[in-house]
Amino acid sequence: MKKTSFGYRAWFQPMVGAVSSHPNAVVKHPDCNFAAEECSRGLNDVSISADVITLDIDASLPAEGYKIAANGGSINITGSCANGILYGVYAFLAKIRMGEDASSINISDAPAVKMRILNHWDNGDGSVERGYAGRSLLWRDGKLGYDPERLKDYARLLASVGINQISVNNVNVRPLTARLLTDAGLADLVEVAAIFRPFGIRLIISVHFDSPCWIGGLQTSDPASPDVEKFWADAAARVYKAVPDLAGFLVKADSEFNLGPLAFGHTQDVGANVIARALQPFGGTVYWRCFIYNCLQDWRDTKTDRPKAAYDTFFPIDGKFEQNVVLQIKHGPSDFQVREPNSPLLGATKNTRQAIEFQVTQEYTGQQKDMYNWAVQWEEVFDMPFNETRSTRDLVGANKEVEAVVGVNNTGDDENWCGHLMAQANLYAFGRLAWDPALTAAAITREWTALTFGTNPAVFNPIVDMMLASRLTYEKYNAPLGICWMVYPHHHYGPSVDGYEYTKWGTYHRADHVAIGVDRTSRGTGYVDQYQPHLRNIYANIETCPEEMLLYFHRLPYDYKLKSGKTLLQHIYDTHFEGVEEVRAFIKTWESLENLLPPDAYAQVRKRFDLQLENAREWRDIINTYFYRKTGTPDEKGRKIYK
Amino acid sequence: MKKTSFGYRAWFQPMVGAVSSHPNAVVKHPDCNFAAEECSRGLNDVSISADVITLDIDASLPAEGYKIAANGGSINITGSCANGILYGVYAFLAKIRMGEDASSINISDAPAVKMRILNHWDNGDGSVERGYAGRSLLWRDGKLGYDPERLKDYARLLASVGINQISVNNVNVRPLTARLLTDAGLADLVEVAAIFRPFGIRLIISVHFDSPCWIGGLQTSDPASPDVEKFWADAAARVYKAVPDLAGFLVKADSEFNLGPLAFGHTQDVGANVIARALQPFGGTVYWRCFIYNCLQDWRDTKTDRPKAAYDTFFPIDGKFEQNVVLQIKHGPSDFQVREPNSPLLGATKNTRQAIEFQVTQEYTGQQKDMYNWAVQWEEVFDMPFNETRSTRDLVGANKEVEAVVGVNNTGDDENWCGHLMAQANLYAFGRLAWDPALTAAAITREWTALTFGTNPAVFNPIVDMMLASRLTYEKYNAPLGICWMVYPHHHYGPSVDGYEYTKWGTYHRADHVAIGVDRTSRGTGYVDQYQPHLRNIYANIETCPEEMLLYFHRLPYDYKLKSGKTLLQHIYDTHFEGVEEVRAFIKTWESLENLLPPDAYAQVRKRFDLQLENAREWRDIINTYFYRKTGTPDEKGRKIYK
Repeated sequence: MKKTSFGYRAWFQPMVGAVSSHPNAVVKHPDCNFAAEECSRGLNDVSISADVITLDIDASLPAEGYKIAANGGSINITGSCANGILYGVYAFLAKIRMGEDASSINISDAPAVKMRILNHWDNGDGSVERGYAGRSLLWRDGKLGYDPERLKDYARLLASVGINQISVNNVNVRPLTARLLTDAGLADLVEVAAIFRPFGIRLIISVHFDSPCWIGGLQTSDPASPDVEKFWADAAARVYKAVPDLAGFLVKADSEFNLGPLAFGHTQDVGANVIARALQPFGGTVYWRCFIYNCLQDWRDTKTDRPKAAYDTFFPIDGKFEQNVVLQIKHGPSDFQVREPNSPLLGATKNTRQAIEFQVTQEYTGQQKDMYNWAVQWEEVFDMPFNETRSTRDLVGANKEVEAVVGVNNTGDDENWCGHLMAQANLYAFGRLAWDPALTAAAITREWTALTFGTNPAVFNPIVDMMLASRLTYEKYNAPLGICWMVYPHHHYGPSVDGYEYTKWGTYHRADHVAIGVDRTSRGTGYVDQYQPHLRNIYANIETCPEEMLLYFHRLPYDYKLKSGKTLLQHIYDTHFEGVEEVRAFIKTWESLENLLPPDAYAQVRKRFDLQLENAREWRDIINTYFYRKTGTPDEKGRKIYK
Repeated sequence: MKKTSFGYRAWFQPMVGAVSSHPNAVVKHPDCNFAAEECSRGLNDVSISADVITLDIDASLPAEGYKIAANGGSINITGSCANGILYGVYAFLAKIRMGEDASSINISDAPAVKMRILNHWDNGDGSVERGYAGRSLLWRDGKLGYDPERLKDYARLLASVGINQISVNNVNVRPLTARLLTDAGLADLVEVAAIFRPFGIRLIISVHFDSPCWIGGLQTSDPASPDVEKFWADAAARVYKAVPDLAGFLVKADSEFNLGPLAFGHTQDVGANVIARALQPFGGTVYWRCFIYNCLQDWRDTKTDRPKAAYDTFFPIDGKFEQNVVLQIKHGPSDFQVREPNSPLLGATKNTRQAIEFQVTQEYTGQQKDMYNWAVQWEEVFDMPFNETRSTRDLVGANKEVEAVVGVNNTGDDENWCGHLMAQANLYAFGRLAWDPALTAAAITREWTALTFGTNPAVFNPIVDMMLASRLTYEKYNAPLGICWMVYPHHHYGPSVDGYEYTKWGTYHRADHVAIGVDRTSRGTGYVDQYQPHLRNIYANIETCPEEMLLYFHRLPYDYKLKSGKTLLQHIYDTHFEGVEEVRAFIKTWESLENLLPPDAYAQVRKRFDLQLENAREWRDIINTYFYRKTGTPDEKGRKIYK
């Protein structure tokens, strides 16, 4: 582990090492002390023209906001609170790092979203579910265990992009991490909280719904039981005594073999509320995940349609939740696929609070072997209409339907945090978009590239172009036109066209020799009717349905003509051939930068590209062969399709 | 664990518990002492008419043979040696248990095969690779660890069917079991050997080819290195000092990521011989597995054909092996599939010794959830022609091409040893067929059924019928016509038609919308040319190729007409519908026996049948739907095929 390596330093780690010899900032309010230290550390390896930097608090600024006012040799940074001033300092440092003249920085900003949350899917044994960047930064050998210096660097990395809450353990809670609710587990948690606290990051604990039995020794976890009510109240009191500023509990109930209120004949609100009441005295929040569906479906059953499940479960109980419950909703109705529509549940519960959940880790999108810039897809998510007048972006923010933005971590103890150096861009983009959903993917990618690789156009421009292209390139060689799930079961890397086709997971493309897809209109499963009427009509009509999502909503014959004039089959062939060529072009671009990049950074990414090319070829050839074998229709351009 | 339960007692466990009060046998030779004890124990719960039983040794009898001569109240059992007399006693006890009158038993017998071997695929951590009967009987917590009383009962179970060698650890040797070559591991092995020794069972150790590095601290395991030669010599001396009657070493080299001589540029003989020379001073044998193939094949490569690999590897080096090397060859060229031809390597090496390897465990044949009587398939294996004049059976025996019969264990610490009560029949049949390959499946099944369930025709007949039918029933709902491998990767239970289709494992059916199969004739991969000319011609000609193996050798269109007049596709539909109905019929039969069977035995099997029916339904519907989707051709009889 080289803590001074390019990968470790990431976009904001000139701050590794000693505090600067630059004169300390002038601190005008004690809440600025930590920010001042960070400012000094951040100026360690740069020289600026300013004579004096003054840090102060101005409570009239918007929540967690800041203002930077430079005037020649004097720079004043003001924050609304300790978090605000810290974000101000980080913004100031970032601007300098991006080449701006310190003496002319005049900006003010504040987060649009109050809760900007990273969920760790880290297990007690040190593994990370869907983690592709090594082992956990937080856990080892069955308990919280870490390198304290590294954890501090990690906290800085998260705070520098505005993340202000993290859950510390996997939503799939197992006995090892369930111990967090006990005195033994809490003793460790106190120390972790102390590391993150100065960075303005509050902790969340993932709790298992069966904790009353697991931890409390009860015979039931029925949320209607007074004993269970008492268990949660006691647990909350115990936890908040140890960590008074804990943000709350995160719960995955009735989902993928985790127990939930359904087992006791209750709707989700009954389960969420018993925990919510326990947290109310302490100001804690219950994040209640909505990823609920039948994971034991019979593939023969064509009536049940998994994407319908979340809306069907939660919409009818809108308004029944306690005020400190937030429904945590995956952005799409499937599961972080390369292309899917937004969840119709988003924005639908007018009397229940919501969070939108993204995946920063690349479970289905290349697993940090393939380059994939999530920012582009997230921008598309926010761009999608909610109704005639509002986009999904318009739902997100303080006092709006979606109050929190959540991401699943892509980090681990690999030297460069994220496995793939370029995957750091996803962590960066997540924080920035959670702060301001109006930021474009292009703007964020330019920021990250400048901070990471500098602003030399010979390096900067090709990297930005490549990053912005990477999402569509990956989609081209992946499952076509929103069909989803043509992936290897379990590990979810690489193509297996029928891999999920006859399983219990509710994910079917039902391809035969003439057609593919599931009709989700009113004539079919009726899923489309869960959307607001405006959007429902767009998706239900094959003429207006965005082509890239055609197969999410419609069953179509292979000779269906797309707007390009190509048949659906030829489109599949074309995109899959193109996808591989685009990866080859990435490699060529990267190789052209060899002498302009730090050798370790160059080599790390170069190796990943070999894996990506191999993966792209597998996808291209398996998808093309699969459809060729099914249809007997050759590629119009006569390219090689294996028989 | 109830050691007196029906399942634990199996076919030969009246011998659990106290020694009989029946007068001890008269022992005329000290080598009969142990057999006499077993005899007395075996008469514990039966009464016989004999007044006196005399046990003696007659060295002029065939090796390990025995003779039972009853004359009214006097019974004389003679054996060629300690093993012979023990087998004589077990045979005598079995006859009585099957209802014969003790006073009129007059038989003599001797094993046709000298080496009758059970391979344990047991791992040091207590797991069993491809084990479906609980945890290991031999290993736990990283070392040899067991219930000594149970292990003695296990030894008796094996000896009662004539097994005289067992390997104690998985051929996929991992560091935990590699310790067997060290003093620490050997100390434990001495005790295990002492338990099996009185039962005439000698031990084999599976060793890793990289042991010189793993254990010896060398920098290479190159078999041409003098240091490596010395390592193996020292290891052999150490092992044989501890266990002087060890049968030998078993090696899986150059196979599925295990290191072998190929890594050092040598052919297999160079690798086997260095170990063989080490064992020669002690009379030990090297069992060298021939399961060598490219497990990183590109599915696009249609020239490489995995079934060719073993013959291609070993035939050219026939005669180069030391005399104490035995090539251990899986009976089929694939991997214990429900239907495959015999390996063309069997009998082909006229100057190299051979063993035939069967799988007693049901990796691809129902995993002891589904009922599957291997004896029927093994009889087919032995029936297959080798050339114009000899069957495969004719190759097997002392002084013939195939000197040893090996089986992979289906046992574990489940109360009934085998997971499925009816799977006990496979362990029984393996021992009996290794003893005498001329026995028919029907004869063996009748023996096992009588020993296990008694001879009441109301029970005996339906069970025998069901057992004999079970192999074809399973095949009916499995992969059709010898195509193999339509199974879920990794765990190998349940259907996944394309599961292996695009993988690196070299196992492809290449089904498209008009045809399925790989042409393995001279026009195709040429695999068929590895057979002796007589058999090659049979398989190469589509008219003479046995229909049940058609798709192993030929690529055929779905409308190909079978001799029945049915198309290939309709045959697939028909057999898959029939398979499920036959399972239903088994269940009906079993239920009709409820009042005639011990309740625990009835219930255990009844539960397994539910699993089998579910599995059969999955196979039926997934296979039928797969081909329906591919072809669009409906079932002629209009039965339900899901779309």
